[in-house]
Amino acid sequence: MAAEKAFDRSALEQLITKRFFYAPSFQIYGGVAGFYDYGPSGCALMTNIINVWRNHFVLEEEMLELDTTIMTIHDVLKTSGHVDKFADWMCKDLKNGEIFRADHVVEAVLEARLQGDLEARAAKDGKAVDPAAVDPAKAAKDAKKKKKKGTVVAIELPEATRKLYEETLAQIDNYNGQELAEIMQKFDIRSPETGNELSVPQEFNLMFESQIGPTGQLKGYLRPETAQGQFLNFKKLLEFNNEKMPFASAQVGRSFRNEISPRSGLLRVREFTMAEIEHFVDPENKDHPSFNDVKDVVITLLPKDVQLSGKTETTEMSIGDAVAKKIIDNQTLGYFIARIYLFLTKIGIKRERLRFRQHMDNEMAHYATDCWDAEIHTSYGWIECVGCADRSAYDLTVHSRRTKEKLVVREQLAEPRTVEQWQVEINKKTFGPKFKKSAKAVEEALLTYTDECYAKLAKDLETTGTSEVEVDGQKFEVSKDDVSVKRGAVTEYVREYTPNVIEPSFGIGRILYSLLEHSWWVREGDEARNVLSFPAVVAPFKCCLLPLSGNAAFEPFVKKFSRQLRQNGISTRTDDSKTSIGRRYARNDELGIPYAITIDFQTVEDGTVTLRERDSTEQIRDSFENILAKLKETDTL
Amino acid sequence: MAAEKAFDRSALEQLITKRFFYAPSFQIYGGVAGFYDYGPSGCALMTNIINVWRNHFVLEEEMLELDTTIMTIHDVLKTSGHVDKFADWMCKDLKNGEIFRADHVVEAVLEARLQGDLEARAAKDGKAVDPAAVDPAKAAKDAKKKKKKGTVVAIELPEATRKLYEETLAQIDNYNGQELAEIMQKFDIRSPETGNELSVPQEFNLMFESQIGPTGQLKGYLRPETAQGQFLNFKKLLEFNNEKMPFASAQVGRSFRNEISPRSGLLRVREFTMAEIEHFVDPENKDHPSFNDVKDVVITLLPKDVQLSGKTETTEMSIGDAVAKKIIDNQTLGYFIARIYLFLTKIGIKRERLRFRQHMDNEMAHYATDCWDAEIHTSYGWIECVGCADRSAYDLTVHSRRTKEKLVVREQLAEPRTVEQWQVEINKKTFGPKFKKSAKAVEEALLTYTDECYAKLAKDLETTGTSEVEVDGQKFEVSKDDVSVKRGAVTEYVREYTPNVIEPSFGIGRILYSLLEHSWWVREGDEARNVLSFPAVVAPFKCCLLPLSGNAAFEPFVKKFSRQLRQNGISTRTDDSKTSIGRRYARNDELGIPYAITIDFQTVEDGTVTLRERDSTEQIRDSFENILAKLKETDTL
Repeated sequence: MAAEKAFDRSALEQLITKRFFYAPSFQIYGGVAGFYDYGPSGCALMTNIINVWRNHFVLEEEMLELDTTIMTIHDVLKTSGHVDKFADWMCKDLKNGEIFRADHVVEAVLEARLQGDLEARAAKDGKAVDPAAVDPAKAAKDAKKKKKKGTVVAIELPEATRKLYEETLAQIDNYNGQELAEIMQKFDIRSPETGNELSVPQEFNLMFESQIGPTGQLKGYLRPETAQGQFLNFKKLLEFNNEKMPFASAQVGRSFRNEISPRSGLLRVREFTMAEIEHFVDPENKDHPSFNDVKDVVITLLPKDVQLSGKTETTEMSIGDAVAKKIIDNQTLGYFIARIYLFLTKIGIKRERLRFRQHMDNEMAHYATDCWDAEIHTSYGWIECVGCADRSAYDLTVHSRRTKEKLVVREQLAEPRTVEQWQVEINKKTFGPKFKKSAKAVEEALLTYTDECYAKLAKDLETTGTSEVEVDGQKFEVSKDDVSVKRGAVTEYVREYTPNVIEPSFGIGRILYSLLEHSWWVREGDEARNVLSFPAVVAPFKCCLLPLSGNAAFEPFVKKFSRQLRQNGISTRTDDSKTSIGRRYARNDELGIPYAITIDFQTVEDGTVTLRERDSTEQIRDSFENILAKLKETDTL
Repeated sequence: MAAEKAFDRSALEQLITKRFFYAPSFQIYGGVAGFYDYGPSGCALMTNIINVWRNHFVLEEEMLELDTTIMTIHDVLKTSGHVDKFADWMCKDLKNGEIFRADHVVEAVLEARLQGDLEARAAKDGKAVDPAAVDPAKAAKDAKKKKKKGTVVAIELPEATRKLYEETLAQIDNYNGQELAEIMQKFDIRSPETGNELSVPQEFNLMFESQIGPTGQLKGYLRPETAQGQFLNFKKLLEFNNEKMPFASAQVGRSFRNEISPRSGLLRVREFTMAEIEHFVDPENKDHPSFNDVKDVVITLLPKDVQLSGKTETTEMSIGDAVAKKIIDNQTLGYFIARIYLFLTKIGIKRERLRFRQHMDNEMAHYATDCWDAEIHTSYGWIECVGCADRSAYDLTVHSRRTKEKLVVREQLAEPRTVEQWQVEINKKTFGPKFKKSAKAVEEALLTYTDECYAKLAKDLETTGTSEVEVDGQKFEVSKDDVSVKRGAVTEYVREYTPNVIEPSFGIGRILYSLLEHSWWVREGDEARNVLSFPAVVAPFKCCLLPLSGNAAFEPFVKKFSRQLRQNGISTRTDDSKTSIGRRYARNDELGIPYAITIDFQTVEDGTVTLRERDSTEQIRDSFENILAKLKETDTL
């Protein structure tokens, strides 16, 4: 991308600060990485993005919106897997105490050595090296992570070492703590800047922890996603929906991740606003009733098999074709990908800088079976802004198992049907005496086996006469006297199933930042001037009201027009500061306000005003009433 | 209030649960006190209340809305006073470990003894006692706090003891931990239910604490109010407002209080949504530019002098009169009280159950100089739902002092003016050698004295020749050789001042609950049916779309009408469940949906539909287009 090279990020960042879209939190106290406050322009932009989101998804599709608590009790997140798995590995500079993410530091050091190797070999040939020329994808990834670079020393590496480093880097996201520790020892990885030794990687859970109530004994976490609150309410939601399937719940709210080293502005922060949809669907039928409405939407896809073959070529394809060709697994997933595309382009994301990348099997979250990310291209590279994952029945299943609360759909069958299934019989006579106070738990474990477990149980009993049952880590041996299991026909009148969940999950801050990049340009002319070309529907303010000067004659017009604009739902910012009209136009271009209405002496005489359009700077003069009618037409774009 | 007696709160609570306005969080895990999730109806109701709030306050008055972080670093809340003062006193049942708020337990026990005294004396006269008949205000207060009652034993008390108890109860909100401990010992206060001994009261800070980042050394708290984030951004806000005063910032968001014993449903919770305005104003001129627009608004007032005389009679008065008579201190405070009144009545709070009560001097928060609460009457008594406090220059002053960042307004004076003020001169020669590395800190302390401190310094130096300066708890002695101070005339060209802050602060959950109570009634007839008569502007859904039956002929009409309604901004819920139309009307009355459109066989023939109005149940038949036009007119009420 040629455009990317010319992109002056620091100029945009200055604009963001100057017009207070956002700024580091607690800045007068020195600030803390990973926390940002949104100012009036950023907050209005975010509110408008959320409103479009709510209209586009929640209202348009009659989703059931929830507002659940941020503080979440330990047991919920233990069950969901976050207490155990939502962690990164960190290690410490043993001398100065600096803390690194273990995978980041390995990556930084190995990449620095590979770079040194490149430079050493280039020096032999008498050439300099531009890293972006060598591997633009990696250069972009580095920029995206903005990580601490290892010190590059031009030393040539043996061929075998180079290859080892490259293989390690290719899999860097897949190592656990033990493996990272081994790699660090094998390659003598040290702190990139100081060269000091590093501690063995330790697990660091990314959830903020706290205590609920005065006893100090009830542990809580700030939610890392809004999804769990939706799963916990599944039963109430299904009832609210009159037991009809499929349906979706939705939630907009704050989530938290205690990142080890936050970076890249809004892209990796510790507190952020998400918007998440949980679409509950019959696992046996993932068709979507409105799929026809979106089947002709053409999107840019990067499927996993392309990536596995080491390429990044994207394909343009209609959603209908992608689902028909099984590139996208099912209609519901395809439907949401199309709807996400329509949402993002509606708020101003450029279609040519938007792609849908499928996750490879090894990079998916612990609960997902398939996942497509909407990635938006920015100066940091391609950024995941929306994840669209199939979480299968994972969450409902684990919460149901833990709480004994049935989280299922019961569907009255039109005709009874006969199904083959495992049938278990417990011998109550032997069970009680044998397992005593554990009898109930062992029985329950046996009754809630998966099909695979039943198959194993049947085989065990047939071959050895006994089988092992695990309950909360404790093992019990059952014999064929205690339990019998066989597969046979059962007549069902009601079908009971745990729904699967398709989850589009939006990082609002990332989308907002990407939109700032996509909307920004500099007006050429005698003076270089910033413009943010937001679509009117998300612009922080729709209209700017400018009295030509501080003359008192303008005041009643400002008051009257401003009221009329607001009453017609056109959010307005009055700029009556004592600056020239040209400078005020420039200021409002920087705020991305699409229209400016100027009140001058002619207004006082005949009630006409001028309307200036932001992007073209074209001006027309007409009565205020006509201008207002014009704005109302264009307002919702 | 006769109406209050008949109020069947448990019936309303059933309705709230059944229609999923809200429910305890983590309910399938057993729940935890003080946390609630809002379901689809409650969430939509809350979103609509917030939208009205935003239109009424932020857009109407061009306030600068912010969105700052919930996680707040320790230093900020240490400075604001929350780390030291935002606490309650708790004590523990020494046998069973149960934890109480110390003031609550003293109150419960003493009130039980007084009640026992009443009963004993009534028994002597052969009468039974109704507590509400004795002191209705106290009975309502008890109900509001829903506190653990002490066991009432009918024992007559000596006159002096009774008097002592009553005096103690009258001041119960004013005792510190030491005083509570003394009272508990003096009156032998024990656990109300078990009679066990209680521990000495310990301070319990009500903020949820956490650690930021991997080092475990950076302490953070979940904000107890959204205000601090606004104060920290004051400088940026003033700049964004082109340095113009007065102006207001605003924020809607989640706040947290780790209550010792949450109670009364949404009224005392641990996580809640607030909406706060910080109006920054010149302390020398608290007039408000739009005061004239509201001066004729008549409100119900309960000023502090009335309360101090032991009464609760309210006064009806126009805001203009209240400010003219100095009952309300200034125009800005009066302006906001009127605007709060207009907001609350717009969303459906009954004017006759809304009053503004002035805080007495001893009940104000540590930062406030004057405060009026909008109190809404509910079955729990009068509930504080909006606080409107004058926080003076407290917050900006303390943050500025702590960070050395100037948080002031600089106003160019039309004409230079001469003012009397304290002038300090530091003798650099003696200062450095005498105070060494503390010299700078001591100098700074002297230069930032208040007027009172300068007066004392001058007097000290004049009388004894020395004076004490305190810096971070350490004391230094300065002599008249080190520093000279005198009061004299100075010519100023710019006036520099720290603005005062008027803060209207809204508890959205409390308002929402009160609105549920005010909106609920039961339709008389053959079957008692619940109705929630929300104004259309906040109703969770504006319109309900009901196909007469599951007949396929209705489907295209449902789809078409639903789209048209949404496109016209009328949020719609389709209810195509297989229940009779009558039952569906009843269901939608319980959701408070003001309009229902029914599609029947005549619709298929001629495109007409019936429109039913919720409160009157009146129905009209007309073309869908005409009905739509009618709804659009009434939509924003």
